[in-house]
Amino acid sequence: MRALVFQSDFGKADGAVCAMYGVAQGVEPSLSLFDLTHDIEPYNIWEASYRLIQTVEYWPAGTVFVSVVDPGVGSERRSIAVLTRGGHYIITPDNGTVTHIKRLCGISEAREIDETENRLPYSGDAYTFHGRDIYAYTGARLASSIIDFEGIGPQIPTDSLETLPVVDPVVEDGVIHGTIDVLDIRFGSIWTNIPHSLFKTLGIDYGQRVQVTIRNDTRGLYRNVMTFGRSFADVSVGEPLAYINSLDFVAVAINQGSFARAYNIGTGTSWHISVGPSPF
Amino acid sequence: MRALVFQSDFGKADGAVCAMYGVAQGVEPSLSLFDLTHDIEPYNIWEASYRLIQTVEYWPAGTVFVSVVDPGVGSERRSIAVLTRGGHYIITPDNGTVTHIKRLCGISEAREIDETENRLPYSGDAYTFHGRDIYAYTGARLASSIIDFEGIGPQIPTDSLETLPVVDPVVEDGVIHGTIDVLDIRFGSIWTNIPHSLFKTLGIDYGQRVQVTIRNDTRGLYRNVMTFGRSFADVSVGEPLAYINSLDFVAVAINQGSFARAYNIGTGTSWHISVGPSPF
Amino acid sequence: MRALVFQSDFGKADGAVCAMYGVAQGVEPSLSLFDLTHDIEPYNIWEASYRLIQTVEYWPAGTVFVSVVDPGVGSERRSIAVLTRGGHYIITPDNGTVTHIKRLCGISEAREIDETENRLPYSGDAYTFHGRDIYAYTGARLASSIIDFEGIGPQIPTDSLETLPVVDPVVEDGVIHGTIDVLDIRFGSIWTNIPHSLFKTLGIDYGQRVQVTIRNDTRGLYRNVMTFGRSFADVSVGEPLAYINSLDFVAVAINQGSFARAYNIGTGTSWHISVGPSPF
Repeated sequence: MRALVFQSDFGKADGAVCAMYGVAQGVEPSLSLFDLTHDIEPYNIWEASYRLIQTVEYWPAGTVFVSVVDPGVGSERRSIAVLTRGGHYIITPDNGTVTHIKRLCGISEAREIDETENRLPYSGDAYTFHGRDIYAYTGARLASSIIDFEGIGPQIPTDSLETLPVVDPVVEDGVIHGTIDVLDIRFGSIWTNIPHSLFKTLGIDYGQRVQVTIRNDTRGLYRNVMTFGRSFADVSVGEPLAYINSLDFVAVAINQGSFARAYNIGTGTSWHISVGPSPF
Repeated sequence: MRALVFQSDFGKADGAVCAMYGVAQGVEPSLSLFDLTHDIEPYNIWEASYRLIQTVEYWPAGTVFVSVVDPGVGSERRSIAVLTRGGHYIITPDNGTVTHIKRLCGISEAREIDETENRLPYSGDAYTFHGRDIYAYTGARLASSIIDFEGIGPQIPTDSLETLPVVDPVVEDGVIHGTIDVLDIRFGSIWTNIPHSLFKTLGIDYGQRVQVTIRNDTRGLYRNVMTFGRSFADVSVGEPLAYINSLDFVAVAINQGSFARAYNIGTGTSWHISVGPSPF
Repeated sequence: MRALVFQSDFGKADGAVCAMYGVAQGVEPSLSLFDLTHDIEPYNIWEASYRLIQTVEYWPAGTVFVSVVDPGVGSERRSIAVLTRGGHYIITPDNGTVTHIKRLCGISEAREIDETENRLPYSGDAYTFHGRDIYAYTGARLASSIIDFEGIGPQIPTDSLETLPVVDPVVEDGVIHGTIDVLDIRFGSIWTNIPHSLFKTLGIDYGQRVQVTIRNDTRGLYRNVMTFGRSFADVSVGEPLAYINSLDFVAVAINQGSFARAYNIGTGTSWHISVGPSPF
């Protein structure tokens, strides 16, 4: 029996998530059910994609993830299941939700859900809640081995999967230019797309100072020099720092403050961040 | 072993829900525990009643629901357990929480909880947390078959159960007049009390246009013509639509916007909605 | 197999909690995982300490709690596990999180986590997420008996544990002077540090009236006479009352209103409350 992990933009204030859980329990009562998060910003596929990469590889191989951020529910968009190179399954609408998983973990096989087979019985008239009627139902059947991966439906080429545009960081004159991928929401830290391995090429050690510049498409928002630290404890309360986050990317924070709120920082490919050695 | 599902207005920011879980684990550690929601608006019995109807029938027969929205804790209100016609159990204060379940699922048997038998040992001096001391404890004992339904306490007539006033939709001159029952919170859609079956009597097909009028007791708030669609994908982003929601009632939304926030729409029997054919 | 219960200030809007769950599932897939809360105010160790005392003793002996409110992550603060006199385990940074547990339950043994043994394999380069790499991993290994309590690491004196300053209530001239420990968040009730047993020495019965005075370090905020009731149902909607809360301490609330919001009441040792007989 594999674990089944749910993610959505439904919130938990109404009954939608509970209905999905009930469907999964109806398939197999001994299945272990978990939540990634249900607080994805409504319709924000990018965030859904990122939260998967933040978590999937910490779960045992064979775990089944169901991710339902689905602005196109009822359209012609496909329903898919993918098997990652690490052996995790992700069931989701084919709308870009697997963008980061494909880039950073790799996808070894993809299938389109055959919705004639893999659909909650007697739900054929409902057009707005595929999370309950198709994804939870199919995820539970896969996690409890009622169907195997082939039972999902026909194989499709992995390069036919929808992905969102991603920008790679570049190094110019000893400075790395990247984008702000996501926030560490509760603490207001900003997480960049600059991997630790790329940052290491600058030759900056823990305890040295770096210059951080942030701008969006219309204006500069921040330029300052700060410590590159192992963790918040390396600077005083209220001080900014650059550090390597728990996913091994460069991040920027204020110790016990919110960097994002302090400077009104957002996320996405229009939010540019540059990190380099301190000029003085 | 049956699943035990909790609902309350406690939120999850403090320890109240966790204390209920601990009591249930103390009764039987192998019991599977789940949440419906704990974000019911404080004291809002109507919403608690509605969230049950949104979820109960998606769970396997035998599942035990514990719902604690209990403004009258410590008063003379009874504590009850009901068995629905579909075979689900609901344990709750007798304050109207079973209103929709009674109307839409049917209740085959009701019992009053005998609080001398069914109360967490050594909790007799606590008057403010029956969710922990009575409902979670009794729900866990029922779900783990330590007691059967008779062990709850004496049978009571189902027509003695408290219910909230409910308004039925009516058809006049080819227009249906109903009320707004609840919001699909995260997406700002409004869910009416107009069942799909009644709407069908208007003879309006998917893709045709309908006129929607909304008023509360003091004023008109909205009148517009919109598409009747299968799902959000049938209209452009930002466009309103009428559709059949996941519970098979008429609903109104803005594709990727919040209809409720756009027009300051509330819920309850003073919020009137009319749906009919487009006049032009 | 013992239950494993998580608490943190991470929120559930991103993937941090799910990564901890994944690590625990990787240790032992049959482990039962639960949440206390993840909505502790960021860095608020006092609140984390209080939520433990609100819940721990309702769980079966042997339950393992992992609490991660960790402003000092990456500093020299120790990682510890304690065994309470009631037989519960708590794994946490040594920063005051066990303050209330130590005072009110008692700690029979404490150990410092040996992070060379008890650390998620291959996580040695991460300095900012000990919740995932050390606490969840160690909690799961303890709860599933892969290690016993001695396997945590070397024993340390219980009086070496960090604790936060706590003020004891005092009685003067028939009036009890205490502090406001915490809020019952959703309902806006204020929970004091005045135990029921001390309040009883005033000889005030249910239904009698008490005078409640609240001030913080700079000014008086509230003085009024109210009923001492068993529960909210003993006063009218909108009326204030004093009562004994579900942890057996004196609390003050407004029936179906928010006392904390009505009078802008906060928590901590600078928030003073006095309770005595009504002067008239």
